[in-house]
Amino acid sequence: MNEITSLKDRTRAFSKERDWEQYHNPKDLAIALVLEATEVLEPFRFKTEFNKEELAKELADVLNILLRLSDVLDIDIMHWFEEKMKENEKKYPVEKSYGLNLKYSEFED
Amino acid sequence: MNEITSLKDRTRAFSKERDWEQYHNPKDLAIALVLEATEVLEPFRFKTEFNKEELAKELADVLNILLRLSDVLDIDIMHWFEEKMKENEKKYPVEKSYGLNLKYSEFED
Amino acid sequence: MNEITSLKDRTRAFSKERDWEQYHNPKDLAIALVLEATEVLEPFRFKTEFNKEELAKELADVLNILLRLSDVLDIDIMHWFEEKMKENEKKYPVEKSYGLNLKYSEFED
Amino acid sequence: MNEITSLKDRTRAFSKERDWEQYHNPKDLAIALVLEATEVLEPFRFKTEFNKEELAKELADVLNILLRLSDVLDIDIMHWFEEKMKENEKKYPVEKSYGLNLKYSEFED
Repeated sequence: MNEITSLKDRTRAFSKERDWEQYHNPKDLAIALVLEATEVLEPFRFKTEFNKEELAKELADVLNILLRLSDVLDIDIMHWFEEKMKENEKKYPVEKSYGLNLKYSEFED
Repeated sequence: MNEITSLKDRTRAFSKERDWEQYHNPKDLAIALVLEATEVLEPFRFKTEFNKEELAKELADVLNILLRLSDVLDIDIMHWFEEKMKENEKKYPVEKSYGLNLKYSEFED
Repeated sequence: MNEITSLKDRTRAFSKERDWEQYHNPKDLAIALVLEATEVLEPFRFKTEFNKEELAKELADVLNILLRLSDVLDIDIMHWFEEKMKENEKKYPVEKSYGLNLKYSEFED
Repeated sequence: MNEITSLKDRTRAFSKERDWEQYHNPKDLAIALVLEATEVLEPFRFKTEFNKEELAKELADVLNILLRLSDVLDIDIMHWFEEKMKENEKKYPVEKSYGLNLKYSEFED
């Protein structure tokens, strides 16, 4: 079994054991995802330094919710990762985006 | 090579080809992570319905930035996923958390 | 002197006394604004109940950063509130938006 | 009538005219608040420059939702602004916080 499926199964089992599936609707998990993501940003409030281990744990929390949400929605995240990669390659062709911090909508024609 | 390492390499190559590594410091990637996470929440503004394919793409964007940030920080996300799982099992023992939407800090002794 | 100007002056004086103006650039205040806003959302993680007083304090924190950011940017928030009200009235005419939780971009013609 | 009450009344009237009060529960408004706050942060993705007028409009949107949420919760934001100012003065005494970008929990005794 592949890695991501295995992690997904872990988060599902964790929730099931605690009878938490009743709370894990897509909207509430989307809220949780935002809250976990902001915990990654929190250490950077008025700073650029950070504690690597703390940050690593916050990233793990984001991954956890991300996989839980993919599972609840029955989304194959690997498939969509590939799809978005292809889209991004079209939106951001190397010759237009090289060295630029611009959104594709800001490219000059 | 495992899945997550392979995805990480993809996002790194994508950035390198575009000379975007100069923008990918931890703080700016943490901002990007929050912004991508809020795009997952956006469809739920005053609603509970959603378009599954759109949501799947937004989740893929979150995964993309999450892996990019792990890579820049040289964080082994799999390792920390396991660590946090163990922590969560201690913080949320089944007998205390069963069926409850409480934070561990809210448990009665 | 009007209310909003008075609150703005309070937040500026608070920062000045602590020599915090050096940290209050627009980007870092925008980060702080997001972090404060997510503290308003935090109590609703997997819940709909909330403690009113706690929420009131979180809202006050958002207002504080909002005014601090307006001050640093030299933005007349009252003026822009009016401008956006006018824009919203055009974007959301009563006859098109009545009773609907749709974005203006989703209106049928 | 004071400024803030007047703005609050404006946002309430706007919602009432469109029969949107049905969607304006605290949880959904808290989501909207986060989404509007992230629009203030969005222009800073991999950048520090910004367009002042665009940012001003985004700040106005945050104020709008903030007042709408205060109204729905029947919260006197001015009162709580004062309360939090007093709390912050205690948490961040000038002699401990001068020139430092630390949270009060990080102060040495």
